[in-house]
Amino acid sequence: MGSKFMERHREKQEIFELLDGFLNPKSVAVVGATPDFKKGGYALVANLLGYCGDRLYPVNPKYKEICGTPCYPSVEELPEVVDLAILFVPAREVPELITKCGRKGVSRVMIQSAGFAETGEQGKKLQERCLAEARCLGIRIWGPNCMGAVNGRTRMVASFMRPHVWEEILRPGDVSVIVQSGMASAGFLMQVMSEGYFGLSKACSIGNRSDINECDLLDYFAWDPDTAVVAMYLESVSDPPRFRKAVENLGKPLLLLRGGISRGGAMAALSHTGSLAGNVGVAEGFFRQLGILRAYDFLELMDLTKALSAWKGKKGGKRVAVVTFSGAAGIVASDHLENCGMALAELSPITMNKLQEVFPPWMEPSNPVDIWPAIERRGRQRAYQESLGALVQDPGVEAVHVHMYVDRPLLEGSWELLGPLFSWQGRAALWLIGDTRCFRELREKVEPMGIPVYGEIQRGIRALSLSS
Amino acid sequence: MGSKFMERHREKQEIFELLDGFLNPKSVAVVGATPDFKKGGYALVANLLGYCGDRLYPVNPKYKEICGTPCYPSVEELPEVVDLAILFVPAREVPELITKCGRKGVSRVMIQSAGFAETGEQGKKLQERCLAEARCLGIRIWGPNCMGAVNGRTRMVASFMRPHVWEEILRPGDVSVIVQSGMASAGFLMQVMSEGYFGLSKACSIGNRSDINECDLLDYFAWDPDTAVVAMYLESVSDPPRFRKAVENLGKPLLLLRGGISRGGAMAALSHTGSLAGNVGVAEGFFRQLGILRAYDFLELMDLTKALSAWKGKKGGKRVAVVTFSGAAGIVASDHLENCGMALAELSPITMNKLQEVFPPWMEPSNPVDIWPAIERRGRQRAYQESLGALVQDPGVEAVHVHMYVDRPLLEGSWELLGPLFSWQGRAALWLIGDTRCFRELREKVEPMGIPVYGEIQRGIRALSLSS
Repeated sequence: MGSKFMERHREKQEIFELLDGFLNPKSVAVVGATPDFKKGGYALVANLLGYCGDRLYPVNPKYKEICGTPCYPSVEELPEVVDLAILFVPAREVPELITKCGRKGVSRVMIQSAGFAETGEQGKKLQERCLAEARCLGIRIWGPNCMGAVNGRTRMVASFMRPHVWEEILRPGDVSVIVQSGMASAGFLMQVMSEGYFGLSKACSIGNRSDINECDLLDYFAWDPDTAVVAMYLESVSDPPRFRKAVENLGKPLLLLRGGISRGGAMAALSHTGSLAGNVGVAEGFFRQLGILRAYDFLELMDLTKALSAWKGKKGGKRVAVVTFSGAAGIVASDHLENCGMALAELSPITMNKLQEVFPPWMEPSNPVDIWPAIERRGRQRAYQESLGALVQDPGVEAVHVHMYVDRPLLEGSWELLGPLFSWQGRAALWLIGDTRCFRELREKVEPMGIPVYGEIQRGIRALSLSS
Repeated sequence: MGSKFMERHREKQEIFELLDGFLNPKSVAVVGATPDFKKGGYALVANLLGYCGDRLYPVNPKYKEICGTPCYPSVEELPEVVDLAILFVPAREVPELITKCGRKGVSRVMIQSAGFAETGEQGKKLQERCLAEARCLGIRIWGPNCMGAVNGRTRMVASFMRPHVWEEILRPGDVSVIVQSGMASAGFLMQVMSEGYFGLSKACSIGNRSDINECDLLDYFAWDPDTAVVAMYLESVSDPPRFRKAVENLGKPLLLLRGGISRGGAMAALSHTGSLAGNVGVAEGFFRQLGILRAYDFLELMDLTKALSAWKGKKGGKRVAVVTFSGAAGIVASDHLENCGMALAELSPITMNKLQEVFPPWMEPSNPVDIWPAIERRGRQRAYQESLGALVQDPGVEAVHVHMYVDRPLLEGSWELLGPLFSWQGRAALWLIGDTRCFRELREKVEPMGIPVYGEIQRGIRALSLSS
């Protein structure tokens, strides 16, 4: 047992060291660097300079310096063995560069160039050649056909994303993202950051994942103390038995958007990342068995991930109280609850009595809790705060879906109406309707209190229905 | 035949005249007007003053003037028989006011007060009493428990919505809305206007619809030349045979969000507008038979309505071309197409040849059309414009779903990339991802060209799948 344990321990440690060198490198070479600020080879240098300082090494025989930092003619002439070499050159030049990296002693290569397995037979062969060469030299490959990696905690952006689009909006957090795609990850990341859906721990675009794959990253995130939630876009699973183990060991909520569920989608996936989606039905059954939480669109993936990140350790449940200012919205919420396998919580007599104190006498409280008459009678603040205060003390209420109308005159102080939910250990989500020009301001006050905000009833209810 | 025809003709004309007096009144009395600017009875006066001018009559025995316009002690003392009397007083005072309106000769009463059938047995009786009284006096009732009506064309806001929240954002258009609810309609309207989802013809909050109901309004909209699309929120149908006839005669796209589909939702609907949702399954079958287009959330209702308004007469179809910058997004779109009963269009050899001209030689065009390599080779403008130009000329392409990444540096000129779609007779929708702070600007340029814009792939595909 001892030796088997030690072996597994050593394996684990190797994976951590390997990926740490990709996600927290101390020194980086950018092969294919250029001073042309419109190109990705410039963005890579500009992005990494602040992070690596003088241990960032642009490589290009044509230039003496790029972005004010010395440029080297080749990998072999670098002043140190870098933790990570990023290749951003035409695909056909990649195999030789891998050889050069190996000669220099570099053990991590990230290929951001496209033109490999995703382009057909020839590209597939080129990719296989790269991998074979890397294996010989003890090099591990990230990519190709990817946009690289971002570390939100250390502000490392190892990607050809243009610097001015992300610089002011990268926010550190506890969500890590794995995307088996290039351009989708750029768009996704940009949207996550600009909209502030959640703070970022690591974002990993693994592209064709010829070597490093989602299983390696899941193993890393299982250990990574900076990661609390993992969101993934995948077209297929590299290694189902290993994937199963990695998911079972993760111990953190995992959300999956899978592309290629339909026949047409699966065909398209084949030409995209060279993924053979395999038997669609079988794969779907596999994910269900593993209890992986699912999203079906990029925005939905962001929305659900946001909730899990906001709730942290908070527990949910199937018995939900709906607090609304509109009977119609309460009814639509009830429909979605039932559709998502949840139910309206039965309120205790104590709760009913407390609600009656804020309700007008002619109105018997019930769930959905329509507080409009209470708002008219007692004002918005008392109606929301006292109703929510009563509900969170009811042991039959496991989650709360709150509705709010907002416009400019009502905006100030609106977030405080939700006070009783801030310290509650159950899960709550807020549905907003009204003047959308105020939504962002209110959202930025409410979400840090652990309450995700949505513009659609069904989205919040779907989030509340996530089991983990 | 002649007399039956004449009778129906007369009936129709009566309905038009009746509803025109509610939606285009020349003179209005507001009973329950108040100078307290925080209250609904003030907002009603402020909202209508600009529209009615000196034919707006606040009524309240306590005041001599409100909002600078003379206030009258009672309905009987008004200087003319108004087209419309709006009641905004406690529920118990309503029956007597109806009598007074009858005595004065007023034939249209809109009851915006709550406290009727939605509150239980007693309220129900009160509502019945009002209706009986109205019937005796030849008065037609709108409401109670509603937020009134808005006419986007004439800028009439007969509602207790606070004026400063809608004043700058009410946009005339061709969509009419019917909402069987009070507060939801206020929120809904505010959101439609602030976000500019679509321009408004009429918005009708019919609340408990004790008399005037959705069938009356559908008959009116069938004729109304200013209405091209109708969106509805209903909890139940007042009169199924009449509803069927009204829908069949409408001749315009009709979208329905129905609350109370689930058991819990149906129970809640009972206490909301006193609607007996009846056998849920039967009702759903009824709507299916009638071919009514469906939404399942308020935001979805706005999103789908927006598309139908943007497309106007344009025809769609099940064979869709997807134009994307991201293989992953193309795959997810394919999945949603199949899920919505549509399919990827097969491209003609001519189209394939045209696409190959803008694609790099190593990449064979296929649908989804991933133009990223073409963007890298030819630039964004040529890649989008030439690909779209080829697709819209392909007789096998009935609809187009376009994907675009946008951020601040890319924003300018992005709308022009879609040029070939502007004059196309097929339906197209745009999916946007990237820096959400630019979305609105781009949307405001693209949507007036007849292309609805969405932040979620599945929403645009769902819109494209709408049959009418």
